[in-house]
Amino acid sequence: MIQNTLTFRVRYAETDKMGIAHHSSYVLWFEMARIELMRSIGLSYAQFEKDGYLMPVLEINIQYKKAVTFDQLLNITASINQKPKAKLRYEYQISDDDEIVCEGLSLHGYMNLQNKAIKPPKAFLNKINEYFKEAI
Amino acid sequence: MIQNTLTFRVRYAETDKMGIAHHSSYVLWFEMARIELMRSIGLSYAQFEKDGYLMPVLEINIQYKKAVTFDQLLNITASINQKPKAKLRYEYQISDDDEIVCEGLSLHGYMNLQNKAIKPPKAFLNKINEYFKEAI
Amino acid sequence: MIQNTLTFRVRYAETDKMGIAHHSSYVLWFEMARIELMRSIGLSYAQFEKDGYLMPVLEINIQYKKAVTFDQLLNITASINQKPKAKLRYEYQISDDDEIVCEGLSLHGYMNLQNKAIKPPKAFLNKINEYFKEAI
Amino acid sequence: MIQNTLTFRVRYAETDKMGIAHHSSYVLWFEMARIELMRSIGLSYAQFEKDGYLMPVLEINIQYKKAVTFDQLLNITASINQKPKAKLRYEYQISDDDEIVCEGLSLHGYMNLQNKAIKPPKAFLNKINEYFKEAI
Repeated sequence: MIQNTLTFRVRYAETDKMGIAHHSSYVLWFEMARIELMRSIGLSYAQFEKDGYLMPVLEINIQYKKAVTFDQLLNITASINQKPKAKLRYEYQISDDDEIVCEGLSLHGYMNLQNKAIKPPKAFLNKINEYFKEAI
Repeated sequence: MIQNTLTFRVRYAETDKMGIAHHSSYVLWFEMARIELMRSIGLSYAQFEKDGYLMPVLEINIQYKKAVTFDQLLNITASINQKPKAKLRYEYQISDDDEIVCEGLSLHGYMNLQNKAIKPPKAFLNKINEYFKEAI
Repeated sequence: MIQNTLTFRVRYAETDKMGIAHHSSYVLWFEMARIELMRSIGLSYAQFEKDGYLMPVLEINIQYKKAVTFDQLLNITASINQKPKAKLRYEYQISDDDEIVCEGLSLHGYMNLQNKAIKPPKAFLNKINEYFKEAI
Repeated sequence: MIQNTLTFRVRYAETDKMGIAHHSSYVLWFEMARIELMRSIGLSYAQFEKDGYLMPVLEINIQYKKAVTFDQLLNITASINQKPKAKLRYEYQISDDDEIVCEGLSLHGYMNLQNKAIKPPKAFLNKINEYFKEAI
């Protein structure tokens, strides 16, 4: 299991006329959280793309549990809970001080710069798999 | 069943460095599509909010099947396929000329301006229910 | 002079907690308007980029005169009022039924895909210059 | 003079198909920077709005000097350089390690929740004016 938490503030532009964060903003927070998760284990997604790989999003699921508001400090935890195979699955939890306000997941494939589906780059996968070594 | 289709173009700002529409853009297109679905049966979501009601998003699910690109003309079909009860569920299909590029759903509750969960406003529900009259 | 007007609706996601369209949304509308202006004279900005050219934004100026709200139908007029030289300047006016709600401009340069500044592509410039032929 | 600098990373969603940060993203960074500037002198913009005040944007100007890219660490300095009168003017500089990549300004008025222009709230203005006391 790989897990990383970061703290961020809801931006003004991320709110809508309902007075709360717009539901599309969470998609951006998920993205920010999985990029920081990668960084936390020594992987740079920017470098990954420079190396000629892309990780398109195949699926997004978001469960909104409690509205969040402008300037609120939130924690987002991204995690990889399953040893990745052909696809990589991230799970997310956003919480304020007291409780979980949102849960979600994203599923990703691997592509080259010609937009062709490829196998996960070995070095990348090895790095992730270090965290899923089974106890003997 | 209620269904409405609209055609739109992918905006430049909706793309990302992968060269395709960013996966968060679809959330905005879903929203646009359900507002137009409402309008197509004579309901204004703007008026609905002026009347003191809100429909927060409780869940979003998006299945990305094929990348879409800047300036591409796309069709989005929003539909309500089940007679709504305490929650309202929209389903979405986005297609280019040839095939479905994305499918998704959103689930909505009802709130008043004090952010308290309420029953669906009667006039609103009656309007929708007209499309779900059972044959005798 | 080249000029084109299009009509659009303010999206829900484009509003903020002030209850009006967020000031960054206008930047997206300007972009949409100049792409449609190009299309109106037979130029495709998508094709322009496929041909290996880019038009980075060098400057943006926006004067907000009156707030606009969700679902409001607005007209945006983009125009090129000066024969372009090394840079291309667009001007914008957004209006509701009664009055101008926003004015602005954007200034653009020309780049190749290696992000090197270049002269404007001849075919592109010729097309625009057709609209700036001086009377004899 | 009041000045505050914060460091942030360019989000993936803030890029566009040109491979760089979209020019509308800077508007969001300016907003984030002026809110942190306020916080740095003990003013909460969230509380300001709860107290019934709004600061609509009247004008935005942005000069883009050098493209910035995904995941880049940038510094943004917001400053108030003039003692505010009826309007409040912020200036912004964004820089990478080496140089200034963007300069801009935003001009703001004051409104109440009924969208009526008002004088600046006294406590708010006094706090800012502390930084503009003239030497005798």
